[in-house]
Amino acid sequence: MEFGPDHRAALLEVLTWRRDTRHFRTDPVAEDTLAKLQAVMDLAPSVGNARPWRVLRVEAPDLRAAVRANFEQANQEASALYSGAQAQAYQGLKLAGLDFAPVHLAVFTDMQPAQGHGLGRQTMPETLRQSTAMAIHTLWLAARAENLGLGMVSILQPKAIARLLETPPEWEFSAYLCLGHPEFQDDTPLLHRAGWQENTPTRWISR
Amino acid sequence: MEFGPDHRAALLEVLTWRRDTRHFRTDPVAEDTLAKLQAVMDLAPSVGNARPWRVLRVEAPDLRAAVRANFEQANQEASALYSGAQAQAYQGLKLAGLDFAPVHLAVFTDMQPAQGHGLGRQTMPETLRQSTAMAIHTLWLAARAENLGLGMVSILQPKAIARLLETPPEWEFSAYLCLGHPEFQDDTPLLHRAGWQENTPTRWISR
Repeated sequence: MEFGPDHRAALLEVLTWRRDTRHFRTDPVAEDTLAKLQAVMDLAPSVGNARPWRVLRVEAPDLRAAVRANFEQANQEASALYSGAQAQAYQGLKLAGLDFAPVHLAVFTDMQPAQGHGLGRQTMPETLRQSTAMAIHTLWLAARAENLGLGMVSILQPKAIARLLETPPEWEFSAYLCLGHPEFQDDTPLLHRAGWQENTPTRWISR
Repeated sequence: MEFGPDHRAALLEVLTWRRDTRHFRTDPVAEDTLAKLQAVMDLAPSVGNARPWRVLRVEAPDLRAAVRANFEQANQEASALYSGAQAQAYQGLKLAGLDFAPVHLAVFTDMQPAQGHGLGRQTMPETLRQSTAMAIHTLWLAARAENLGLGMVSILQPKAIARLLETPPEWEFSAYLCLGHPEFQDDTPLLHRAGWQENTPTRWISR
């Protein structure tokens, strides 16, 4: 497989137009699209080929309401850390699309996967969590290419979410994802637009 | 930006042909390509737009030798955890391309970045490490689209690597990356081919 300018342009456009979506339309995502996204997620890198990500599709209204309540509490506590103009700015930010997103996915990392037989993670158990993060990113890009938006919610209490969803003890909460059709598109992060944190380039340093 | 079948096909091909490369040719990577990859990495998602990844380009021969020695030690210790046929299988695996890859990048996560003003990580400081993992994955895909290979080495002692590279205390070691022209291409993980761990699909579970 020899990649050319068209591949690079397409990848760059998907990366450029991927956003942390918080504004969703309520119309559903087609089930065959979800099945496709589920398969694409498995193309993510994972140490030892362990694929330690675990995905719960949260549909029960009472569970969704409980997740939302947990977000509200964690967000209020986070808001209390700021003061003055910054507190006001924080409260003005929309930080999750839990109300309208048609698809909710709770993603966990299996910290004791049988797959991979422990390879590559003896000195860095962290690699399991990295694999899950990369799988989420893979899903994010694949969703974007399907003209869908994905929002990653991390203003949650991990242990409360695990209790709520009754997950096995070896599963560690990684993120809660909102997925659906975005209300609008943008090539610039919302936090940049809102003046909370501008884009800053990262320079590589030589050693 | 409306994405169509061509975008989806291109993304799928890059994802499918991304491998953890361990077999490199020694010819250098063009500096303008590296500059491009550095910029593309900044398109990765990051909580609070904090972009906490820090990248050291390791070029000094003595530093490269010390990293290699650390890998040898960590790999021997990991190998000792297996016995019988599995030990033999482990020893037969090529797990890093440190000897021939022309570009070496040590990637860290700044656990106290000023950028982002703490947003989104109060209950989950883990999000900073997730951002770095997604940035590495972004670089991985961008490199693949440039017909380069990237290998992620995690069989290393994180604290020893941080000491060796004299990084600030708030930087946490995330991964050591080998980058260069791959000796060969494949759409199937080496660990699958070698019989260490076959590909297993991850099913989403409903709640």
